[in-house]
Amino acid sequence: MADTDRLPEFPDILAAAARLKGHIVETPLLNAPLLDARLGARLLVKAEVLQHTGSFKYRGAWNAVAALTPEARAKGLLAFSSGNHAQAVAAVARQAGIPATVVMPLDAPAVKTGNVRRMGARIVTYDRQTDDREAIAEQLRQESGAALIKPYDALQTIAGQGTIGLEIAAQCRAAGVTPDLLLCPCGGGGLVTGVALAVAALLPQTAVHAVEPEGFDDMRLSLETGMAQRNRPGADSFCDALLTPEPGRIPLALGRSLLAGSIVVPDAYTAQAMRCAFADFRLVAEPGGAIALGAALGGRIDIRGKTVVVVLSGGNVEHALFQRILLERPSP
Amino acid sequence: MADTDRLPEFPDILAAAARLKGHIVETPLLNAPLLDARLGARLLVKAEVLQHTGSFKYRGAWNAVAALTPEARAKGLLAFSSGNHAQAVAAVARQAGIPATVVMPLDAPAVKTGNVRRMGARIVTYDRQTDDREAIAEQLRQESGAALIKPYDALQTIAGQGTIGLEIAAQCRAAGVTPDLLLCPCGGGGLVTGVALAVAALLPQTAVHAVEPEGFDDMRLSLETGMAQRNRPGADSFCDALLTPEPGRIPLALGRSLLAGSIVVPDAYTAQAMRCAFADFRLVAEPGGAIALGAALGGRIDIRGKTVVVVLSGGNVEHALFQRILLERPSP
Repeated sequence: MADTDRLPEFPDILAAAARLKGHIVETPLLNAPLLDARLGARLLVKAEVLQHTGSFKYRGAWNAVAALTPEARAKGLLAFSSGNHAQAVAAVARQAGIPATVVMPLDAPAVKTGNVRRMGARIVTYDRQTDDREAIAEQLRQESGAALIKPYDALQTIAGQGTIGLEIAAQCRAAGVTPDLLLCPCGGGGLVTGVALAVAALLPQTAVHAVEPEGFDDMRLSLETGMAQRNRPGADSFCDALLTPEPGRIPLALGRSLLAGSIVVPDAYTAQAMRCAFADFRLVAEPGGAIALGAALGGRIDIRGKTVVVVLSGGNVEHALFQRILLERPSP
Repeated sequence: MADTDRLPEFPDILAAAARLKGHIVETPLLNAPLLDARLGARLLVKAEVLQHTGSFKYRGAWNAVAALTPEARAKGLLAFSSGNHAQAVAAVARQAGIPATVVMPLDAPAVKTGNVRRMGARIVTYDRQTDDREAIAEQLRQESGAALIKPYDALQTIAGQGTIGLEIAAQCRAAGVTPDLLLCPCGGGGLVTGVALAVAALLPQTAVHAVEPEGFDDMRLSLETGMAQRNRPGADSFCDALLTPEPGRIPLALGRSLLAGSIVVPDAYTAQAMRCAFADFRLVAEPGGAIALGAALGGRIDIRGKTVVVVLSGGNVEHALFQRILLERPSP
């Protein structure tokens, strides 16, 4: 069994933290007392939108690339991604001075494809409805020998995302609080299960919940049935970063023991969360990045009287979409 | 001579840092490699929009209130402010469990007056064109005995803002860089001179420049003529936080020896800076908070090949204005 076939464990996150030290932003854990008063809860927002490339994905990508042998790294990097992982891999490749190719859906936000291109990576596009992006990536890998940096179903990627959990635990300790709940966006599940792995070790009283868009609740269904379930085709959500067809194999295996459940949030609450991030935290969040805050704001889980950590995981959003979201409810 | 009649000195900033410890956000110093590549410079953005109440003003207010005797504090707080200082004083009063009254202009942004009201402070409004806010505040002070927390022309306020300079110096040291330039928004001058005082002690090679809106370049005129100059009436700018009539007495005295100069920036560049903060840093900046970034983007000072720290000082901006700014130049 290859080392990467086993499930990630807490020491993998500590090793990732050592590799990431000095190369990532230690993102702040923010609080807004007026919002807390409105909600009757204590909300702590992990501002991971401030990470390099605007999302948590940089952590996993850096860790996965840093764990490669120099020989493997020299052949370049390959990734498939709806956008944020693509940007992260392109940025890490640029930093390391190696080439990168990323496979992105045709309908990825222009802000994400534009950033990837400006970072010097080659983009190969595919159709989300008809093409198999993993197959395309596998073919490219065989042609070039480049190292495939998986977006979520890989030990080192998950261990990198888990460093967010280490920081949250240290920041909560410094603030003298123990969270009751931690809510985290979930697409393939690499972020929420990496964070949950760290939290299980350091904040064992904290219940970790995945948060998914309505129509894309494959993690919830998979946790409830005990086996991998795919989303039904035809659903739609503006959370472009969370539209993965099914949970990753490793995230699901971790999630079974580490997650308290998965909360499903309609886009309307996520839009409200984007406005809340803007007005109460002065942060730009993309839909998929704001959804966990949407779960808290929309009452999808009872937070009254509780201390709740919310991961704001990404902030790459089109000007036009952001305008529209702000417009839906003007200033008070 | 009362202790507060002297000019602030570097040890006052160290004392402020001790008072603020654990009560403020240590805001990150962020970098965006793609933006750097575009500008041919290394830009480091101090994300003070993430401070409590969304601006640097919380530091000075906290420090000034913490430096009061318990007897003085018990009579409540009084402030005059275009909005951000008002929010900061209201928040500190709420935290301390004491009443606050703030004198705000009739045309202050609704987001700022709304926040002040929600924090439980009493608001007294005045007309920016016809009333003398300092006279109104003085009358209220005599009536109530409340402690006047000045927005910029006061030792402890400036010392509090100066803690931003301490953090910048520590963060630059941790990143292994020595900035050539530091650009900082300037209204009354409390922020830029507090920061300059810390930087003079810790980063003596770094030239600190104030940045002012076109038509409100009272600091530039005052520095150049060697004496306090008022802005000519009738000018207009969307930088609502920077429309003070003349530099504070203490900031001007400090500025004469500590500032390399003051850069004047038209609103169009500041709008560009707000879009840059949104897209490159996922931060919400208000006009007055973004102006120093506007100086760097708009070529108002030669930054090519240099390491430049920019203070992003506040992020309290109306939905409608932010929408309009984003709309001016859509996504690429």
